[in-house]
Amino acid sequence: MTITMGAPAPTKLAERFTASANATDSPVFSNEQFWQWFTEKRRRNGYVVRRIPFAEMSGWDFDPATGNLGHHSGRFFTVEGLQVRTDWQGGWSWAQPIINQPEIGILGLVVKEFDGVLHCLMQAKMEPGNIDTIQLSPTVQATRSNYTGVHKGRPITHIEYFVSRRDSTVLADSLQSEHGTWFLRKRNRNMIVEVTDEVPEHDDFCWLTIGQVHQLLKKDNVVNMDTRSVLSCLPFGAAGYRTDGSAFRSALRNSLSHDQPARHTTTELLSWLTEIKARHELDQRSVPLSSVDRWYRDDNEIAHEDGKHFTIIATEVAAAEREVSQWTQPLLAPTEQGVVGFLARPIDGVLHLLAHARAEAGGRDIVELAPTVQCLPGNYRDEEPGRRPRYLDLIQNAVGQHVYYDSVQSEEGGRFYHADSRYRVVEAPDGFPLETPDEYRWITVHQATDLLQHSNYFNVQARSLIAGLHSGA
Amino acid sequence: MTITMGAPAPTKLAERFTASANATDSPVFSNEQFWQWFTEKRRRNGYVVRRIPFAEMSGWDFDPATGNLGHHSGRFFTVEGLQVRTDWQGGWSWAQPIINQPEIGILGLVVKEFDGVLHCLMQAKMEPGNIDTIQLSPTVQATRSNYTGVHKGRPITHIEYFVSRRDSTVLADSLQSEHGTWFLRKRNRNMIVEVTDEVPEHDDFCWLTIGQVHQLLKKDNVVNMDTRSVLSCLPFGAAGYRTDGSAFRSALRNSLSHDQPARHTTTELLSWLTEIKARHELDQRSVPLSSVDRWYRDDNEIAHEDGKHFTIIATEVAAAEREVSQWTQPLLAPTEQGVVGFLARPIDGVLHLLAHARAEAGGRDIVELAPTVQCLPGNYRDEEPGRRPRYLDLIQNAVGQHVYYDSVQSEEGGRFYHADSRYRVVEAPDGFPLETPDEYRWITVHQATDLLQHSNYFNVQARSLIAGLHSGA
Repeated sequence: MTITMGAPAPTKLAERFTASANATDSPVFSNEQFWQWFTEKRRRNGYVVRRIPFAEMSGWDFDPATGNLGHHSGRFFTVEGLQVRTDWQGGWSWAQPIINQPEIGILGLVVKEFDGVLHCLMQAKMEPGNIDTIQLSPTVQATRSNYTGVHKGRPITHIEYFVSRRDSTVLADSLQSEHGTWFLRKRNRNMIVEVTDEVPEHDDFCWLTIGQVHQLLKKDNVVNMDTRSVLSCLPFGAAGYRTDGSAFRSALRNSLSHDQPARHTTTELLSWLTEIKARHELDQRSVPLSSVDRWYRDDNEIAHEDGKHFTIIATEVAAAEREVSQWTQPLLAPTEQGVVGFLARPIDGVLHLLAHARAEAGGRDIVELAPTVQCLPGNYRDEEPGRRPRYLDLIQNAVGQHVYYDSVQSEEGGRFYHADSRYRVVEAPDGFPLETPDEYRWITVHQATDLLQHSNYFNVQARSLIAGLHSGA
Repeated sequence: MTITMGAPAPTKLAERFTASANATDSPVFSNEQFWQWFTEKRRRNGYVVRRIPFAEMSGWDFDPATGNLGHHSGRFFTVEGLQVRTDWQGGWSWAQPIINQPEIGILGLVVKEFDGVLHCLMQAKMEPGNIDTIQLSPTVQATRSNYTGVHKGRPITHIEYFVSRRDSTVLADSLQSEHGTWFLRKRNRNMIVEVTDEVPEHDDFCWLTIGQVHQLLKKDNVVNMDTRSVLSCLPFGAAGYRTDGSAFRSALRNSLSHDQPARHTTTELLSWLTEIKARHELDQRSVPLSSVDRWYRDDNEIAHEDGKHFTIIATEVAAAEREVSQWTQPLLAPTEQGVVGFLARPIDGVLHLLAHARAEAGGRDIVELAPTVQCLPGNYRDEEPGRRPRYLDLIQNAVGQHVYYDSVQSEEGGRFYHADSRYRVVEAPDGFPLETPDEYRWITVHQATDLLQHSNYFNVQARSLIAGLHSGA
């Protein structure tokens, strides 16, 4: 445990983030205090989520003409059908249910210096689909309906730092995509703002260094998806980055530097993506939910006839700590735990991740960069070995020091029910070729964070792993 | 006239581009040789474009159900209806005809060093809509149908440097938008590749330095839109950039440097764009062309009932130098010459351009950065002064040394008929406020070229002016 308070404050942003990442504990709110507070939050702020038949939902109905599921106010989101066709990844055509929620929400993190070290204002937030009730969210997590009052709920605490930008300086601000397999063209605004004035205290919030949050990313289901997404946009400097003498962390530190050699130049990576987008198509056509082939609806769920992918269920939520105290809503429930992983390796001492150019049903622009592997393995249980996801075995079977990072993390609990995945960063085995199939490229971490200043380069699973990397050993 | 051949070759890309921009003439193909060759091309490669009634077009028909105009093969492009609604720029709702051409073409420039200076392989290319018959295009200008043979025309000369990337190194490669007011979500691939091997000679092509092309950008209707678009993606270095002692060029040189102060950080500019996209909507709905309100069709044209905006006409083309020797096609003909201009000024000695966040009917993502002014002035002839485009008078009325750049340039001659605009960069008058309305921001040239490595930040008119800047005095 290292407490770095009192060291001279660095001035460049990347160095300031690094100093905060190096601080794995803090006198402002120690790890011990955090766990007391967080355990108490989880204990006291219980809520009950109960599956109910669709007919018992209040305000939610199936449109008689299309079978689409929506709220009678026209707000929140709808579950629709989508017909998809792409000539990428060997060529596929399919139809599926998908969530359409066009408005752009804010995932906003307030940071502030205490004793020269940046701290993040984290919130203990409950979401109905979360496995462990309450998780750690960014300072603000709000749909536009939330913060403009459509929900008619309580005002969003600290929203003013993001909406009116009162007394705050923006450090990062980009639109990033979410779950293209489940959402139609969804994206949220990922913001980091710095505040220098006093921030009002509130019992649902605490100040943690980036290093403290990184330590929490080693735990299962503590740090929520929105926090991981926002953290992935942070550029760290290599200078002074804590390595603890491990070979992995030394290679990670080198991967943060613009001066270290990368397998491909960023121009080459951008050209590869441009080529894919120029040559391939992702045709998306909204269709009535009732017309979606191979999916059925009964009183309790919308499901795939082979039990694959996910179901749409109805739930009733009773909770103390949300905008309104009780409601019913549909949730999307994956059929099993997902597997999400990057193969990684040092190349000339610099950590590289094997990124996959992946087309997803609800994607905005043909492909985004995804982890090496991202799937529900059960979807492929009946497939020939050649049709199973490439590299899945390498991600699943790695053990010991070849596993740089390994934890179970939840997807967004406001729309997804018990949706979790095993997130892993795994060392590529001896003899794994540097030459990659054309759907893959080796990238460094600083190339990734440079691109993350812009929108829609990395999908949300890749962003989760990029955030998690820093807690790897 | 400066010929810089023989100087030691710079190694960094930005410096190599600068060295080529400084070379305003070249022993490889002198300005005199160019004009001889180009004049001869224009003289010999004449073609006739004749307006015809729609009924005389071959292979093009109006769909009986929708009134959409398309080719019976389903290829090339269609003219459809679009219903648009946005709450940006005060809020607008309208319907209009629009060209839908979903495939992504290549605008590709080959560069190669001669005596240590980069030269661009330029093509004398005819397009049916061009005002002065032949203009100077990039090495390759090809729709996907062109280079995959759908046109059944001749093979595209030099396409192999871009498609199979034979013996070429990519220097820039991004998807950039085109004319959102006339095209539905159109974008093309802007590529620059470097070749070191011998390139086969061809009489339609010549090698020019970037400086020679910049000089040609002072002339009306010589350098075509695709060349301007590709050139705008070039990052120049400030070191050694030719200033000729002019105050404008000194400020331009400082604007190329990452070390000079910018009015806003790039993070602030990106946050401003993110905020607009998160808060505003551009709703685009394809509708039957026959249902578009306030537009009519007769035997010869599709036109607006007030004679505004543009008409869709039918043409017959007879020419020697295109993929097929004779054909008929629709073209979009604007009703008058456009006005496109940046207000510009040095701020602390660094040239800044006043960029406008502009929503266009066929845009891909709510807004892109546009010039300060971009319009057909006649569209506003009956409007109250308060409804005329902001800053139009400043762009139109500037004279003398306050005009940094001024020429008439054509838009894409393959789809647009005699579509030209007066392109100007004009010094903001004394007392013009540094504080801008929220739809505008001051940006430096290096901020622009950094963003131009990515897709869809700048519209095509802004890119034309960014290319033209370097020929300003």
